[in-house]
Amino acid sequence: MRYVMVQIPKEPVSPSPAPPAVPTSADVARLAGVSRATVSYVLNNTSAVRISEPTRRRVHKAAEELGYVPHAAARSLRAGHSRMVLMPSPNVPVGPLYSQFFNELQWALSRLDYTVVQYGSIGLYGDEAARAWAELRPVAVLVPGGGLGPQGVHVLKRSGARAVVTLGPERVEGAHALLLDHDGVGHSAGVHLLARGRRRVGVVIPQEPGLEFFSKPRLEGVRRALEGTDATVTELPLAYEEEAAARLAARWRSLGLDAVFAYNDEYAMLLMRALQDEGVGIPQETAVVGADDLMFGRLLRPRLSTVHIELPSGRDLAELVDRVVRDPGGAPEVHEVFGARIVHRESS
Amino acid sequence: MRYVMVQIPKEPVSPSPAPPAVPTSADVARLAGVSRATVSYVLNNTSAVRISEPTRRRVHKAAEELGYVPHAAARSLRAGHSRMVLMPSPNVPVGPLYSQFFNELQWALSRLDYTVVQYGSIGLYGDEAARAWAELRPVAVLVPGGGLGPQGVHVLKRSGARAVVTLGPERVEGAHALLLDHDGVGHSAGVHLLARGRRRVGVVIPQEPGLEFFSKPRLEGVRRALEGTDATVTELPLAYEEEAAARLAARWRSLGLDAVFAYNDEYAMLLMRALQDEGVGIPQETAVVGADDLMFGRLLRPRLSTVHIELPSGRDLAELVDRVVRDPGGAPEVHEVFGARIVHRESS
Repeated sequence: MRYVMVQIPKEPVSPSPAPPAVPTSADVARLAGVSRATVSYVLNNTSAVRISEPTRRRVHKAAEELGYVPHAAARSLRAGHSRMVLMPSPNVPVGPLYSQFFNELQWALSRLDYTVVQYGSIGLYGDEAARAWAELRPVAVLVPGGGLGPQGVHVLKRSGARAVVTLGPERVEGAHALLLDHDGVGHSAGVHLLARGRRRVGVVIPQEPGLEFFSKPRLEGVRRALEGTDATVTELPLAYEEEAAARLAARWRSLGLDAVFAYNDEYAMLLMRALQDEGVGIPQETAVVGADDLMFGRLLRPRLSTVHIELPSGRDLAELVDRVVRDPGGAPEVHEVFGARIVHRESS
Repeated sequence: MRYVMVQIPKEPVSPSPAPPAVPTSADVARLAGVSRATVSYVLNNTSAVRISEPTRRRVHKAAEELGYVPHAAARSLRAGHSRMVLMPSPNVPVGPLYSQFFNELQWALSRLDYTVVQYGSIGLYGDEAARAWAELRPVAVLVPGGGLGPQGVHVLKRSGARAVVTLGPERVEGAHALLLDHDGVGHSAGVHLLARGRRRVGVVIPQEPGLEFFSKPRLEGVRRALEGTDATVTELPLAYEEEAAARLAARWRSLGLDAVFAYNDEYAMLLMRALQDEGVGIPQETAVVGADDLMFGRLLRPRLSTVHIELPSGRDLAELVDRVVRDPGGAPEVHEVFGARIVHRESS
């Protein structure tokens, strides 16, 4: 029986030369002939402590010579919290819109001296995911999509996270919320199609797992736009596959629809092509509207009508995080951050 | 003058109620009436130590009650290394191909009990980035694209990283390499166009920063395919914008080209549309070939010819990482991992 504090590898580790010892700040201090505290002041750029230029140079030279870098974990253990902002990696392929938002957020947070890490969340769900994130002791956690519950927020806060911010259609108790108004996206499409004289509106529901957090409120938004009129809504489940689109297009005329809101531009492109291959006239017989305003929508013929979505500004989100980290005592803030507007082109 | 070990905030922190103390394993031990070592055995699932079921239950109950989660940093300090595999976040929008590869990699690593974090690398370059990554003490680092030099590899290894693996067109001294054969992508396109009887081949060079690591070897691959023939290569710088494509298309006939390899499917779609709008016959006047085999290439008319790219398997990469972490003493491994083959459709 072995008594160890660390996880036992599943198979015996094969014998191999021991890796070289990792240099510590004590090694740097010894080589530079200064105290460990001085090494820490110099390498952490502590401006409140005056240290002579020659000493600084000596410390930097010793650190470089030894290949020493400070240990974020040790630093965060001392400080009681880290500068790490954790975000779960998206499990669905992200479009250019999200990429741009995330890049902007990274820039803004790095200027405020935070480090952003995206945590691979595949295979982790709900509060189990929150516990795994908490092990890294992030000072702030940003959670897009759904899945985090009040218990998960509690676990994160108990582990020292000062700011927990959700980005999604609904609030979670205890967390700050950026409410993304997906309902508004569907509503814009519905209002537009009504105004174009359409009355029998299909709404594409993607069958890819993970998209229901977005597709459900978009569907509700279309319903809301059509409420109190004689127009009807028909749900159209669709997988992102050419064959699935062809099958739907083959029975299109039996559905008696005169318009479709296709969830986003990618599904719109898929379905529009299948309808065109069936000889369905776009927009004469069926108006097609996507969402996201991707560039390729302008490259299609007819050019694709779409809902343009204003994502939250990465800079504003970074400032919210920083404000809450500095002053974690306040009540959870709620911000509505989506702007949705129709871009009318030729397909509707 | 204040003496502190932590980074000084840029502005004074506003007064706020102190956050509740973060529970420790000592608190759990006290509540459960067991030693700290027992808490550690139970919560780290140490199978080598026999602990009675009632004791296990008491520890789990106490941990849950207190909202305690183990601290990965403290655990990695004790163990000397973490289970963290670090990958810099891509700075360019990733396509569905990369998303799928990354998801597979995450799955495979999490089954081997590693945690994957993507590090936000915006604003960090070369060895500076390596130092920032090293602060998190990852046990393995996977670096796609270019930018990491031998000095960066050294810093990472000195900080305890057992496996440093680059994924790119070139080897870096000291690191394991998955050589992605972008040259082969261009070569496939060039061979195909030659076989289709084309002799004046344009090659699109994307103007978006960060893509040169991929576009240069692809261009070289086309050149290599055409070597020793009477065919010529013309470089075509192109920004991913409709207007830029329209300008290029407007002077297309003066270029005298009969084929174009458009870097990837997205650029191919952009350019093909612009050429069609100018009345250039595809493929009669100009053959168009993309790369990546994205689904929407099949939705275009004419259907887009493309180079299908076999990315490394996420599972194989995970196994390489695990093997090297267990036995870090061996010489750097080099694997060639791309398979590129032409998918001939209607545009060429």
